[in-house]
Amino acid sequence: MDEADVPVFSRSPSELLRVGPGFELAAVDTGSTPGFAGGKAEGKTLLKASDQRLSELQERLFAQSRGGARDAVLLVLQGMDTSGKGGIVRHVVGAADPQGVSHHAFKAPTPEELEHDFLWRVERELPGPGLIGVFDRSHYEDVLIHRVHGLSSREVVEARYGQIIDFESSVAGRGIRLVKVMLHLGKDEQGKRLSERLDRADKYWKYDPGDVDERRFWDEYQQAYQVMLDRTSTADAPWFVVPADNKWYARIAVQELLLQALEAIDPQWPPAHFDVAAEKARLADS
Amino acid sequence: MDEADVPVFSRSPSELLRVGPGFELAAVDTGSTPGFAGGKAEGKTLLKASDQRLSELQERLFAQSRGGARDAVLLVLQGMDTSGKGGIVRHVVGAADPQGVSHHAFKAPTPEELEHDFLWRVERELPGPGLIGVFDRSHYEDVLIHRVHGLSSREVVEARYGQIIDFESSVAGRGIRLVKVMLHLGKDEQGKRLSERLDRADKYWKYDPGDVDERRFWDEYQQAYQVMLDRTSTADAPWFVVPADNKWYARIAVQELLLQALEAIDPQWPPAHFDVAAEKARLADS
Repeated sequence: MDEADVPVFSRSPSELLRVGPGFELAAVDTGSTPGFAGGKAEGKTLLKASDQRLSELQERLFAQSRGGARDAVLLVLQGMDTSGKGGIVRHVVGAADPQGVSHHAFKAPTPEELEHDFLWRVERELPGPGLIGVFDRSHYEDVLIHRVHGLSSREVVEARYGQIIDFESSVAGRGIRLVKVMLHLGKDEQGKRLSERLDRADKYWKYDPGDVDERRFWDEYQQAYQVMLDRTSTADAPWFVVPADNKWYARIAVQELLLQALEAIDPQWPPAHFDVAAEKARLADS
Repeated sequence: MDEADVPVFSRSPSELLRVGPGFELAAVDTGSTPGFAGGKAEGKTLLKASDQRLSELQERLFAQSRGGARDAVLLVLQGMDTSGKGGIVRHVVGAADPQGVSHHAFKAPTPEELEHDFLWRVERELPGPGLIGVFDRSHYEDVLIHRVHGLSSREVVEARYGQIIDFESSVAGRGIRLVKVMLHLGKDEQGKRLSERLDRADKYWKYDPGDVDERRFWDEYQQAYQVMLDRTSTADAPWFVVPADNKWYARIAVQELLLQALEAIDPQWPPAHFDVAAEKARLADS
């Protein structure tokens, strides 16, 4: 396809979707497609067309780290069940070389993890230099499910917002660029997606009766997300709320956010750390 | 493209490339393309056409594990520098969902790793149920570089072949299907590939002066590989020697080996572990 035929964002998702002061989650239309005029077909075309760019930038980022650069990217994915976190990993991050990706899905903490501070297991999964890290759920569960179900006291949860800000500031200071994404799904759309999992034998494995239990706490979760966004969207580590009823839109939006993070790093091929002429002579002689 | 237009292997790489009794590494033409009559263009077409099949089988394998199945696959990649291990990961394994892949590149052991038996760090990186594991280098370095450079005594190295067989037999017994691949490169082709890394500024980062040092031990490495193949190609965990001068061929051959391993497992969507009708009612009510 001609480059001229590839649809583009009319305005950048990193501006349009960024959570700033006064942001209201309830005011977001989960079926909207901010900054993108096209539909599903155009979205798929853009996703495919940008795969190569993502792959190239990832390779440069990786290469740069071999020259000593510390830069990395960390994509944090949060969202209600069925909001499409897995699809982002498969269809967006999947374009990058597996060698350059560090993926981790956070589940209910293990007994060992529970013996430590809630950030302990997160620290251990941070991407090394040159890598694109992906967190499918994260330390934010400790202020989401913990707040909704009172798994920790209100005081403990309140303290965590500040601890998270400090932690992420330190992470950013180490050269890890954070891209925090909330996939914002409508309740009706979740109902449809859960229903589909019950209609198709090849989808049963994705269904968990616990998802319906959690669904009953929909409003409480929305409130917990709102507080989280208010308290932890910082200059170092901003939140982006991505309308997620259209999977194709969520994918191109997150792809664009990742591309912009990589472009902001602007990774460079590292110079030779050896004498090229001398090595050519040694090679010829070997 | 019509399915009828996709080129195919005339004979299976898993038969043609498998290391059996009497196998002679030196007799393999590293520029050959066993079982495939086409050239580079046809090879690329086949690679692309089979991506979807690999992705589907991987998803089934993953899904099956959620139902309790223990099956996994482990692709072990060995080969001289520049033999294309990284390209296999990027272009073959890259077709699968990053969530279903567990990739590990083994480097020189850390001080902690050196305090343990040579298989200790390998055990820790084995793929969990439902995953495709990929080892870029492996425990075989402990009978390759160790043998060539005498990093361990000959007695220790000799003992390791048996330890490896026992270990892999236990691994296979746990449901991990091993696919061990030696990417077999010609010395001239290696010279060209190293030379290219010295000619292109965007390839410098892949060049290591130590590669030329190792190249001087070419014959010793070929001997160490021959012994390794003789001693550790078992029914549980066979070796496949893949001619690797043609990157496109090595990729379709390894893709085919992976596909066959997955097809042998024949992973199935797990049945619902809940009452579908009851869940539909609960969902409708939520």
